[in-house]
This record gives sequence, structure tokens and C-alpha cells, in this order.
Amino acid sequence: MNIGMIRAAAERLRGHVRETPLLSSPFLDEIAGRRVLVKAECLQHTGSFKYRGGRSAVSALVARGDVTGVLAFSSGNHAQGVARAAAEFRLPAVIVMPSDAPAIKVENTRALGAEVVSYDRARESREEIGRRLAEERGLTLIKPYDEPEVIAGQGTTGLEIARQAREAGVEVADVLVCCGGGGLSSGIAMACEAEAPGLRVRTVEPEGLDDVARSLDAGRIVGNAAAQGSICDAILTPEPGELTFPILSRLAGPGLAVSDDEAMRAMAAAFERLRIVLEPGGAVALAAALFHPDAVEGEAVIAVASGGNVDRDLYIRALGGSPG
Amino acid sequence: MNIGMIRAAAERLRGHVRETPLLSSPFLDEIAGRRVLVKAECLQHTGSFKYRGGRSAVSALVARGDVTGVLAFSSGNHAQGVARAAAEFRLPAVIVMPSDAPAIKVENTRALGAEVVSYDRARESREEIGRRLAEERGLTLIKPYDEPEVIAGQGTTGLEIARQAREAGVEVADVLVCCGGGGLSSGIAMACEAEAPGLRVRTVEPEGLDDVARSLDAGRIVGNAAAQGSICDAILTPEPGELTFPILSRLAGPGLAVSDDEAMRAMAAAFERLRIVLEPGGAVALAAALFHPDAVEGEAVIAVASGGNVDRDLYIRALGGSPG
Repeated sequence: MNIGMIRAAAERLRGHVRETPLLSSPFLDEIAGRRVLVKAECLQHTGSFKYRGGRSAVSALVARGDVTGVLAFSSGNHAQGVARAAAEFRLPAVIVMPSDAPAIKVENTRALGAEVVSYDRARESREEIGRRLAEERGLTLIKPYDEPEVIAGQGTTGLEIARQAREAGVEVADVLVCCGGGGLSSGIAMACEAEAPGLRVRTVEPEGLDDVARSLDAGRIVGNAAAQGSICDAILTPEPGELTFPILSRLAGPGLAVSDDEAMRAMAAAFERLRIVLEPGGAVALAAALFHPDAVEGEAVIAVASGGNVDRDLYIRALGGSPG
Repeated sequence: MNIGMIRAAAERLRGHVRETPLLSSPFLDEIAGRRVLVKAECLQHTGSFKYRGGRSAVSALVARGDVTGVLAFSSGNHAQGVARAAAEFRLPAVIVMPSDAPAIKVENTRALGAEVVSYDRARESREEIGRRLAEERGLTLIKPYDEPEVIAGQGTTGLEIARQAREAGVEVADVLVCCGGGGLSSGIAMACEAEAPGLRVRTVEPEGLDDVARSLDAGRIVGNAAAQGSICDAILTPEPGELTFPILSRLAGPGLAVSDDEAMRAMAAAFERLRIVLEPGGAVALAAALFHPDAVEGEAVIAVASGGNVDRDLYIRALGGSPG
């Protein structure tokens, strides 16, 4: 894994991935007590940054010429990213998704042309199911984060942040990143190391499921006790990846964690002040910026709003209403 | 009014106005039966395109050196655009707003540092109140649409659309624009005439309050019978402007109108498929693209999503929920 792979991914993604805006609002600055810049990856194709990694990995496989179909396991965002990328290259895609994944993510993945296989998040291993299906059908597995070309694709978000922050006059800041297995965080960290060394990545996770924060603190990979217990479905992973953890360990500051309630309040703030739709797992970084200002350093903070694939009922609740 | 004024406004706005993305979703393409590109001006500073016109007008006044404060009348979006622009130049701003303006727009206008004066939309004339206050306090009136530097500012949206559509491979298309007095529509029409002559502006208004469509049809300015009767508060105007109508008459295709229900459904589609928040008046162009496909020409359509300043309760209803 090196910055050259991220730059190569950016070349392959040019004209396909959307350059997402870095948004701001004086009202959010006031809540946080510092300037807040929000990287709106919810506006990416398929509604999350995951399309970057999906397209990066699929395009790298196609360039090597040895792929006839792909397989992924995902709670929904990686699923959609890989499904769209595979469809763009006219490759079949099979996606292994937990049975409790948000309905919109399952529907969208199917609508993008992929075959969805369900599993029980609490009792079955998605890795095992994925490996078996890949072998049976001759599909190439695209792992959600512990895969170099996926990390390289997610890292292109960091190349954009480095340039956009400079244009906004921000050279030194914490970059808060919603974190599951660490693909996005580690990719952004490497991009910033090379192109904006004053920007430091900080992972943000759900309280009680902050395996990355505890691993960073312990200096070794530590898993979560539970696999469930938060509405932030997009970023629930058992432990940091073998590839992503060493990168984060070298480059990231201490990890942060927020409550589900804070994630919901950040969704409401993003609605009202930025006019973007965030899902809970895509709102934790903004939640940390707004509601944990003492844990952040610097005069400005950058929060990556990583996804916006949220069911209507949950979104209505985040705005204080009742589903109809 | 000429393209040179729009280009000069773009120079003055550089680094202040946000270049908003042109979004898309295969799901929207499927509903519309053609490619749909959405210019997300809800992501503009203050949540609507109106900041462009406000900053253009205020910066032009400041450049002339003869302004000590500004006044505007507005249902809320022009109010916020002018308030923010005035604050950036440290000028006092007084805004005349209807008493039934959405609460969020009134609050935001005040929070941006402006003084808000209320009036009754059905019984009083905002133009009259505005003229009186301007005279009494020595303020310069910035009209919401019938003002060359405002039209020039809104027209910068069209310069971006012309370039972004070309990058997306779209040279010939209808450009649907949410239309009140015609400032945005006429500015975009002039920009497209100069830089993308295959793009044709079509105004979109609420059904029954489609003064611009009827005026275009009649070949002369025709007013609305009522001043109220739609949830699309941002685009309720009695008749097209004296400056904007001749431009639209020369350059625009036939006007379109949509129902409030269609605007609400377009808000829900933008939530689910684009992850952007639209207000009713900012959603009518997308509503026409999605639900009136037979009235649109060409293989692609561009819809300007002009604003996203919507109260939570109305938004929750658009998503099918009940306010809490």
C-alpha cells in the first residue's frame, strides 16, 4: 500500500467518480466552536464513498484481465458500490448482505443488477459464506476494506480533501472519518500524509463498538465484544483490518466515539444546515465535530460525511417525527 | 442586461459562491424515461441560488462606493442571500418578509445579522413597504429579480450548467428551472445562449400560479389571480418581471406547471436518490422532469434544484411521516 496506488486509482476513477463538495455553514461553526468543513460523500454515486473503492478494485481486476464476476460481503454501501462498478464493466456481481441490512440498501443493490445472498449477522460468518460462494462460482472476492485497491479507491477522497482544504485556507486540522474496518480512514490518512501533512485523521465509531479506537489505544488489534448494538449499520465491524490497522496506527490520532443519539442529532443538523441526507453511520464524524469539540484539536475541523443511504422511517425519527 | 454582466458577476463571485454539483441517479433516469441531471443549488451558501444574486448585487454596489446599507423584500431565500452578502461586506441589512414565511427562513435571516420586518402577503404590498423603509433609512433596495446585477448573479448558475453539461456529454437538452419572478430562469437562459446554445430554458411553476407560463403563451405579461394557494412559497410571485420577461420571451420554451403533490413527491425522490434536501419551490423543476416527461424534449433533461430551506414538519410530511 502506498500513495502511488492511490494516485493510480484516481487516474482510473477520473470521469466516473464524482468530486464531492466540501460544505460549510456558519450555524455549524457556532455549534462546534470552530470552523467545520464537511466532505459530502453522501453525494457520491450510490450514496456513499464505497463506489470509489468498488470501482477502483473492479477496474484494477479488469485491467489485469482475469475476472469473470465479483463477490462482496457488505451491510449495504460496499454492496452498492461494487454492484454499480461491476455493472459498468458488464460483470456479474453476487453480494452477501446481513438479513438486518436497511431495506433501501438491499433494494438498491438488486436494482443495480447484483444477486443478493442474505445471512444472519449474529450467527453466521460473512467471510466464510463469501469464500464458499466465490469458490463455487468462480467469482473474485472484493473485500470491503482489507484490500489494497479498495483502500486506494477510498484514498482518492483524501486527495480531494487535501486540495479542497488548501483552497479553503485550512492547512492544519483534524480530519474526522466515520470508521468501520478502516478502509476510508487509512486511505485518507495516506493521501493526507503525502499531500497535506498538516491534516491528521481521527477515526469516529459508535460508542461501545469502537474497536478501532481501542486498538489504536492498545497498540494492537482488539475486537468488539458484540456485533450489534448501534443504529450505525454501515460501520459495524468486529475489528480493524490487518492492512488498515498498521496504517492508522502510524498516521491517525486517538480514535473518537459517539452515541446513536448524537449521530441522529448530526443527521438533523446536516438536514437543516447543509441540506444533505446522512445515514447514522455516515453522520458520526459530524457528530463528533459538533458534540465532542473538546476531543478535537485546531481552529478548523474536517468531517467526512461518508454515506446517505437511510430508510425513510429512521430519517423521519431523526427529524423528530413519527413514521406514517 | 448582457452576457458580459454575467461573466463579470462570475469574476466577482469567484471564491465566494460554491460551484454546486450536477447530480444524477439511474433510478431517476428510469422514472423520467431519459437521463436526468440535477443542478443542486440547495447546496449553495444560505441553501439556495439566491446568494449568487445577493452577493452579485451587493458587491456591485460596494464597487460603486455609494452604499451604506441594503434592503430587500423576500419570502426567505433572497432574504438570506442578501443578509449573508451584506454581512460579508459589514453592511446593515433590513429584510421585508411575509408573515407566513417558513420559520426557518425568518430565523436564519435574523441569525445572519439582518433586521426582519413582517407584512401580510394578502393585504399589503411588499414593494410599497420596501420603498418607504429604504427612503426613511437611506438603504439601497435590492429587488429579488427585476434588477440587472441580481439576474447577472443568478446567471452564473447557467455558466456552470453549460460547462458541467458539456463535461457530462449533454449538448442538447431542456433546462427546467423553478421560477418565481424569473431572475434565475432569465439569467440561466442568457448564459446558455452564449455558452451552450443547445440548452433551452423551460420555467416550472406551481399549478394555478403559473403567471410566467401564461405570459409566455400570451406574449405579454399576465398576472396571477391569487397571491397564495401553493406550498411553494419560494416561487410565488404576482407576475414576471419587466426585465426578466423579455429575456424569457426571447429564449425560453413553453412554461410548465406542477401540483404541490408532485413537488412533494420530487422532494422524496431527491431524498432517496440524490441525498439532497429540497424545499417545495426548489423541487418543482425535478417534479416536472420526473412526472411530466411528455412535456419535455430531448434525450436528457437538466433540472435546477434551486433551494432546500424547508421546515422539518413539511419535510417529514413529504417523506410520508407525521410531525412529532
